[in-house]
Amino acid sequence: MIPGLEPGEDMELKLKELAQELGCELEGNGEVEIRAIAGLREAGEGDLTFVANPRYLKYVEETRASAIILSPSDPPLSKPTLRTDNPYLAFARALEIFYPVSRPAPGVHPSAVLEEGVELGQEVSIGALTFVGRGAHIGDRSILFPQVFVGAGSQIGEDSILYPQVTVREGVRIGNRVIVHSGAVIGSDGFGYAKDGQGRYRKIPQVGGVMIEDEVEIGANVTIDRATLGDTRIGRGTKIDNLVQIAHNVQIGEDTIIISQVGIAGSTRVGNRVILAGQAGVVDHVQIGDDCIVGSQSGVAGDLEAGSVVLGSPAIPQHLFKRMAVSLPRVPEMLKSLRNLERRVQSLEEASGGRP
Amino acid sequence: MIPGLEPGEDMELKLKELAQELGCELEGNGEVEIRAIAGLREAGEGDLTFVANPRYLKYVEETRASAIILSPSDPPLSKPTLRTDNPYLAFARALEIFYPVSRPAPGVHPSAVLEEGVELGQEVSIGALTFVGRGAHIGDRSILFPQVFVGAGSQIGEDSILYPQVTVREGVRIGNRVIVHSGAVIGSDGFGYAKDGQGRYRKIPQVGGVMIEDEVEIGANVTIDRATLGDTRIGRGTKIDNLVQIAHNVQIGEDTIIISQVGIAGSTRVGNRVILAGQAGVVDHVQIGDDCIVGSQSGVAGDLEAGSVVLGSPAIPQHLFKRMAVSLPRVPEMLKSLRNLERRVQSLEEASGGRP
Amino acid sequence: MIPGLEPGEDMELKLKELAQELGCELEGNGEVEIRAIAGLREAGEGDLTFVANPRYLKYVEETRASAIILSPSDPPLSKPTLRTDNPYLAFARALEIFYPVSRPAPGVHPSAVLEEGVELGQEVSIGALTFVGRGAHIGDRSILFPQVFVGAGSQIGEDSILYPQVTVREGVRIGNRVIVHSGAVIGSDGFGYAKDGQGRYRKIPQVGGVMIEDEVEIGANVTIDRATLGDTRIGRGTKIDNLVQIAHNVQIGEDTIIISQVGIAGSTRVGNRVILAGQAGVVDHVQIGDDCIVGSQSGVAGDLEAGSVVLGSPAIPQHLFKRMAVSLPRVPEMLKSLRNLERRVQSLEEASGGRP
Repeated sequence: MIPGLEPGEDMELKLKELAQELGCELEGNGEVEIRAIAGLREAGEGDLTFVANPRYLKYVEETRASAIILSPSDPPLSKPTLRTDNPYLAFARALEIFYPVSRPAPGVHPSAVLEEGVELGQEVSIGALTFVGRGAHIGDRSILFPQVFVGAGSQIGEDSILYPQVTVREGVRIGNRVIVHSGAVIGSDGFGYAKDGQGRYRKIPQVGGVMIEDEVEIGANVTIDRATLGDTRIGRGTKIDNLVQIAHNVQIGEDTIIISQVGIAGSTRVGNRVILAGQAGVVDHVQIGDDCIVGSQSGVAGDLEAGSVVLGSPAIPQHLFKRMAVSLPRVPEMLKSLRNLERRVQSLEEASGGRP
Repeated sequence: MIPGLEPGEDMELKLKELAQELGCELEGNGEVEIRAIAGLREAGEGDLTFVANPRYLKYVEETRASAIILSPSDPPLSKPTLRTDNPYLAFARALEIFYPVSRPAPGVHPSAVLEEGVELGQEVSIGALTFVGRGAHIGDRSILFPQVFVGAGSQIGEDSILYPQVTVREGVRIGNRVIVHSGAVIGSDGFGYAKDGQGRYRKIPQVGGVMIEDEVEIGANVTIDRATLGDTRIGRGTKIDNLVQIAHNVQIGEDTIIISQVGIAGSTRVGNRVILAGQAGVVDHVQIGDDCIVGSQSGVAGDLEAGSVVLGSPAIPQHLFKRMAVSLPRVPEMLKSLRNLERRVQSLEEASGGRP
Repeated sequence: MIPGLEPGEDMELKLKELAQELGCELEGNGEVEIRAIAGLREAGEGDLTFVANPRYLKYVEETRASAIILSPSDPPLSKPTLRTDNPYLAFARALEIFYPVSRPAPGVHPSAVLEEGVELGQEVSIGALTFVGRGAHIGDRSILFPQVFVGAGSQIGEDSILYPQVTVREGVRIGNRVIVHSGAVIGSDGFGYAKDGQGRYRKIPQVGGVMIEDEVEIGANVTIDRATLGDTRIGRGTKIDNLVQIAHNVQIGEDTIIISQVGIAGSTRVGNRVILAGQAGVVDHVQIGDDCIVGSQSGVAGDLEAGSVVLGSPAIPQHLFKRMAVSLPRVPEMLKSLRNLERRVQSLEEASGGRP
């Protein structure tokens, strides 16, 4: 943070100060006052805007923003410009400066219910109507918003945030700087049954836990089941979008991106830096290597080697899927051509005195 | 409401009164007493039933209902009948009459937690264990059931209903006559990250809001993310079923229907009177025109012109999809025919002295 | 339970006692002390492990477990072994013995809110910050964890468990030994609207209920809508995984398995012992016979006869789907072959003096 600067709605920074703060190269008038960040088309006087995707460059000349963040390869501009190799990252940092998070004051709200043996770190905030079970541990500066549930013996690290109405069942470990959004359920029972002699399902007790490593973010209404034995694990820096299902004993690597409504079945292992696009599904007990990309709505039914890029249900390599997507709509016409060809060949055969 | 009539279980109306109330034409004995509404096959003595879908007409003669709502084009019936162009709408109104909603008494339950500066309209109900953040505004006659969360500065209009365990994060605006079902999360952070120099994801602060217009209904466990900047918007009269995902900066038009488990990715615009069927997905940054219909489980990967009807993943025009659905299962047999044909052509070529 | 045995972390059983308890045949040293249950590869000294899936037999020789549960047909082993026809079921029972569920003490937490006329059976536990509406009935030994909502007049049977933040709306009946996981919503309004004369949607009041029969288990963040009239019904022993959507008036049979993220549309009937795999969808108003299996991500658009096994969207018989999955990726190459063949046939036709 810039020393002496107070966060809030009245923030105002000269562009040259911002250039220094964001590590950007300044082009044009550095004395321009920036008061807010806005999108290219919504921006007005006093706003800083940005272009991270080249297809928006065409709107650059029309923007009413006072300044703009561009990459060094973007064309020169008449208005003040900040140049950086990563405009999107500079945009993220600018947002952090202009819209600092207002965090609840430390302390335990009188309506919260803490069972015996709860350990609270320094400057922890426990919101109204939140429940923390016996022996749970909440690390320094972590925030539990109102109406959160943390079960007995669970551990939350430092600087983590649990938004309203998160459920963390017993025996779950959550690392540092983790963010969990409202309605997410961590540590629900895995879905496991054994058929008994009468063909009825008997529940397999789910006695394992969940381990969420540092810097993970978990979306709204996500479900992460506890392991049958051992741990379900989400690796450091992995980001999970809303309404995702992670079944028992799944192991997810680091810096992996899981888009909304993806489902990952039991005991599957997903590597590092993987991207699972929206509504994709992965069956149980398979292994997805590092750096794989699984397209939206795809269904992965077997192991994927590191670096695979797949699409479709069942998922196939992307280049093959794209060829199929072009050719499959032609199948009705192919069927006609084939019929026609069969007739012509038959005529030729008859003309040549029957099949050889 | 019919003057002097008390809602409740002991309601009893003559069919002629009901005809007038529902704006239907009466055929047969108007003195019949109606005490309840029931399905065609479940109805008995004293029940009013209806047929909105012609394929159920075959059951009409068997029903034990005392009276029935039909369209003018349906065949004549021996039992008392109410005729209307829109039997389903008359059925809806009859349900409203016989099953009036019992709303909680106005007032704030002593176990609710309201921060400073909360503004409550007239006859507002705040249920037990509900939390309302500082500066939030709840409009006249709106109902917050128990265990609801409304964040700081959020605004709820008049006559709106938030069912138990709804989460409305800070800075969300909700209109009049809006209904939000249990477990829905409105205003969770959008899913946005910028890669830093080390290949790790840095969170883009999500500092925008959500705008829910009048008469919207939002299903159970739906997630609607707040915008990065600006607003995520749901237009007037749009109805959203359970477990739907609406990403940041999505703009939905008016009178649109979004069936269960649909996912709409970031910044996509959906027009008016669109229907998105169950489990469909729409990628980010595309535009779906007015009056489009997207079939169930479809995947929309590009813009759709107004009035498009598409199916499949990737989605293609419906007529093409239907032809494909018929022809694709024949591909294995086509493959055989093709092999066979190749052999026959080769024979012909050999017989005619080799290829020309 | 073995008499005189205290559940807890210090449990220790001789293998011969366990053999008797689990109904297994003992091979080898029955004096071995078992202190925990563990997976094949994670197990160590003092652990009992198991093999239910033959493909894991290859790891049997390497396990460091002190004893192992196998089926009679598995090869003989040098270490102490328990033999049973159903190793997975024996594993489930062993987990029950070594990891007994710690249930909250009976009683009503002082922060819970119970409206007038609530009836509580014997030894019921009502957790902190839980709300029970007027006239609701909670059966003997049932457990409502903290922050649960049970609406007016709803009934919960005996020995049932509602995990934290479950919502049970008014007028829902839940049987005995039912388990409902966090975030599940039972009894939200069905998704039904009638178009009025102006093309706007008018809500159909959803005045029916939900009936959950005995021994059902319902996953985290599942949504089960109440019926328009009558009941949405989940049959005895059916198990529902996380994030599943059950629409209004759906009828599900007994001992059916519904994997995560499945959606079942309104008024559809699903038989007994059906398996609906992950992310499958079923349209409204169809009937799925007993013992059907619907593959993951499949879309069922019509009735299915008992015993059907289907895959794909739209769903087709499994054997046909598998043939298609092999042949469809060959369509691009077929298209080329077809073109090539057309040219060759044209040449032959020209050589033979034109088409006959």
